[in-house]
Amino acid sequence: MSELTHFNKAGRAKMVDVSEKKITARVAKASGKIYMSKETINKVLSGHMNKGDVLAVAQVAGINGAKKTWELIPMCHNLLLTGVDIEFTVDDCHCYIEAVAEVKTQGNTGVEMEALTAVNIALLTVYDMCKAIDKRMYIEEVKLIEKQGGKSDFSL
Amino acid sequence: MSELTHFNKAGRAKMVDVSEKKITARVAKASGKIYMSKETINKVLSGHMNKGDVLAVAQVAGINGAKKTWELIPMCHNLLLTGVDIEFTVDDCHCYIEAVAEVKTQGNTGVEMEALTAVNIALLTVYDMCKAIDKRMYIEEVKLIEKQGGKSDFSL
Amino acid sequence: MSELTHFNKAGRAKMVDVSEKKITARVAKASGKIYMSKETINKVLSGHMNKGDVLAVAQVAGINGAKKTWELIPMCHNLLLTGVDIEFTVDDCHCYIEAVAEVKTQGNTGVEMEALTAVNIALLTVYDMCKAIDKRMYIEEVKLIEKQGGKSDFSL
Amino acid sequence: MSELTHFNKAGRAKMVDVSEKKITARVAKASGKIYMSKETINKVLSGHMNKGDVLAVAQVAGINGAKKTWELIPMCHNLLLTGVDIEFTVDDCHCYIEAVAEVKTQGNTGVEMEALTAVNIALLTVYDMCKAIDKRMYIEEVKLIEKQGGKSDFSL
Amino acid sequence: MSELTHFNKAGRAKMVDVSEKKITARVAKASGKIYMSKETINKVLSGHMNKGDVLAVAQVAGINGAKKTWELIPMCHNLLLTGVDIEFTVDDCHCYIEAVAEVKTQGNTGVEMEALTAVNIALLTVYDMCKAIDKRMYIEEVKLIEKQGGKSDFSL
Amino acid sequence: MSELTHFNKAGRAKMVDVSEKKITARVAKASGKIYMSKETINKVLSGHMNKGDVLAVAQVAGINGAKKTWELIPMCHNLLLTGVDIEFTVDDCHCYIEAVAEVKTQGNTGVEMEALTAVNIALLTVYDMCKAIDKRMYIEEVKLIEKQGGKSDFSL
Repeated sequence: MSELTHFNKAGRAKMVDVSEKKITARVAKASGKIYMSKETINKVLSGHMNKGDVLAVAQVAGINGAKKTWELIPMCHNLLLTGVDIEFTVDDCHCYIEAVAEVKTQGNTGVEMEALTAVNIALLTVYDMCKAIDKRMYIEEVKLIEKQGGKSDFSL
Repeated sequence: MSELTHFNKAGRAKMVDVSEKKITARVAKASGKIYMSKETINKVLSGHMNKGDVLAVAQVAGINGAKKTWELIPMCHNLLLTGVDIEFTVDDCHCYIEAVAEVKTQGNTGVEMEALTAVNIALLTVYDMCKAIDKRMYIEEVKLIEKQGGKSDFSL
Repeated sequence: MSELTHFNKAGRAKMVDVSEKKITARVAKASGKIYMSKETINKVLSGHMNKGDVLAVAQVAGINGAKKTWELIPMCHNLLLTGVDIEFTVDDCHCYIEAVAEVKTQGNTGVEMEALTAVNIALLTVYDMCKAIDKRMYIEEVKLIEKQGGKSDFSL
Repeated sequence: MSELTHFNKAGRAKMVDVSEKKITARVAKASGKIYMSKETINKVLSGHMNKGDVLAVAQVAGINGAKKTWELIPMCHNLLLTGVDIEFTVDDCHCYIEAVAEVKTQGNTGVEMEALTAVNIALLTVYDMCKAIDKRMYIEEVKLIEKQGGKSDFSL
Repeated sequence: MSELTHFNKAGRAKMVDVSEKKITARVAKASGKIYMSKETINKVLSGHMNKGDVLAVAQVAGINGAKKTWELIPMCHNLLLTGVDIEFTVDDCHCYIEAVAEVKTQGNTGVEMEALTAVNIALLTVYDMCKAIDKRMYIEEVKLIEKQGGKSDFSL
Repeated sequence: MSELTHFNKAGRAKMVDVSEKKITARVAKASGKIYMSKETINKVLSGHMNKGDVLAVAQVAGINGAKKTWELIPMCHNLLLTGVDIEFTVDDCHCYIEAVAEVKTQGNTGVEMEALTAVNIALLTVYDMCKAIDKRMYIEEVKLIEKQGGKSDFSL
């Protein structure tokens, strides 16, 4: 049975040693959703059309979040991200906004956490900008959907 | 119908002017869950008992996340947090770990975003430390559950 | 003749002691311009209309810059900003974009540096996003235009 | 006609994918000036001679600014800077201080923004340390003056 | 017997709740020493006289360290520092440099950690700038020497 | 006689140019001690056994400190750390806790400062969490104990 790798012999957390791992091209994709009221999602949509573009701010925040992952997740390695993009889908029928983040690096460890953090921070930013009119929003289904370039690929 | 408050006349995002708001004692509570496999949750639990305490790291990460909210959420105000605590519940029957964060301040704007960010970063840290053995974890039900001290109180 | 206040008796820099100064409502306004080619400014303008909104990104960056001033300017005090807004004017006749930032706080020292930093970072972000098509842009006339709430008001 | 490269198909900002670009030695040089009153520039000069060295603080601030560029300019890549230096020229005849920053990296994208940010933060630090005696200083001519190691070299 | 206050009922670390504590003027002073070889200390001294001023850089670094304490020490509260100063004494007879940092705030918790962090970062900066010529330097006697404005004053 | 390398011709600090240095595997180890009262060290020890684990928090803080070294030490290069671990030894006879940090990178400059910063921040975190019961703790013997992979190896 495999073991948690982030602990040293004393049982304390460490930053896993990846010195011997090869530098390869790595990609990770993550997604997540924020649910809100009909009224709120309509506000977001109308801002997108006219002025008051919530998702433009969330886009910048998510990319910033990806870059700051190493500061936020204690055992994460610092990496040089070579590309970050986020796509939003607004589903005004089921009242959610979905964010999908794709992160790339050339490195010796993967960028799953960077993609997941980008999604989370983007969705939290949507929350922040809509919270004056809706306190019942919630974030759901934040998950990794794809990962390439490490020991083993993964795809949901 | 109420309007999104984070935009100026040109339709661009701004940090809302709270200069005239009163400084009051404010509290916010948020919660969220991370679901994982039976095997993974058992690892987390056994680490908790013996060594390799995932949640001790997630606790520190979540508190750090609360403090860094102003850096992550673009239109958030910087605040002096006067207290942050996080509680974890491990439900090994339904295979999730729940984090509940409580944040306090004496300020002229609320700490909802700080509580939500604390929850998110704590759960992402659990993800990070378990991802070597489980890539199918997902975060669910991140939401505000209580808020006091502003214009209107809120409780789920 | 007045003296530079940021130095101690040994002639070394210090963060000036403002413990005894009163907490008052303070506002500062700063402005600056970035000049670019006709072609570049037209790109920025057309993005503004359709898609590819350079100034939306610069807006977020400038506000973030205001919040990070204390990390960037060594002797600056950390302050709780209570409002930040930036306005852009695009002058496609004289080929410049002007940014005007207004920053507010309730504090014992002013927010001139925050307003100036917001302007600078906003203009640098415009530079970054246009530099692939124009390497001859330059930033001009970054200056304080107004300041209220301290020992003496100032207005250009 | 070339296009702005920082936007995805949805018209939203992205961190440009540089994964396929070659890692080369890159250098960028930028410059800028801060103008001040005769009295102020004499203070700066006398501090330089005796004690109260404004430019020593500005030097450290500018180098720090170069290192923090990725945090400040939203679509900038994080890079490993392999060298940063700043040179100041004090022209007490025309009452300005000029900063020239040179930044180096081994990377797959250039360091123009790092050099420009170093100049800006250095000049803002001069502003901060002299603002108690002079509120009419202004920053001018912040521009790229040289760039090597990318697709095309540039020199003013 | 008094208890460690930084833990919640579950035995996990928390940011202690200081919401109810009064805002008072607080001061803390800390000191520490770095020992080095005769040759190294002479280099530092001669730089101080002529050019290559190690302590000017250490001064800026220490003040920056004080401001970043909340980011470095997990359970520290963010505070608005109202003054930071550092004084160095070079003892070329016993071959050490002593740093004494004084930090002030108006807040509901003390600034001991800020003063101690300022000292540490200042001394580490001296180490960094001298390490090319001396790898046997060491830091000693980092301690709090004075504290005022809290529940009880302290003086060494 | 060797010279301090961190200064340019004008005698001002610079980030040393390491562009031409080879990328090699580098390791550094540093150590330090915090002394405290018998009562305090017993508290720390009993927390370790039961609940209230001071060293678990110090571990996370120290690793974070290593990652933030480039932000704290002005002339330090940003590096991609490929491994960080910290080990604590509690000597309840002589009343000290020793931290030993090991840091690894693949880079063109060493990680001494990262190891030293990890030790310092870990020990300061112990200080923070015990300071409510002991104000007379002090940090001693912070030093480099090993360094490999650069121009010359070093071992104490």
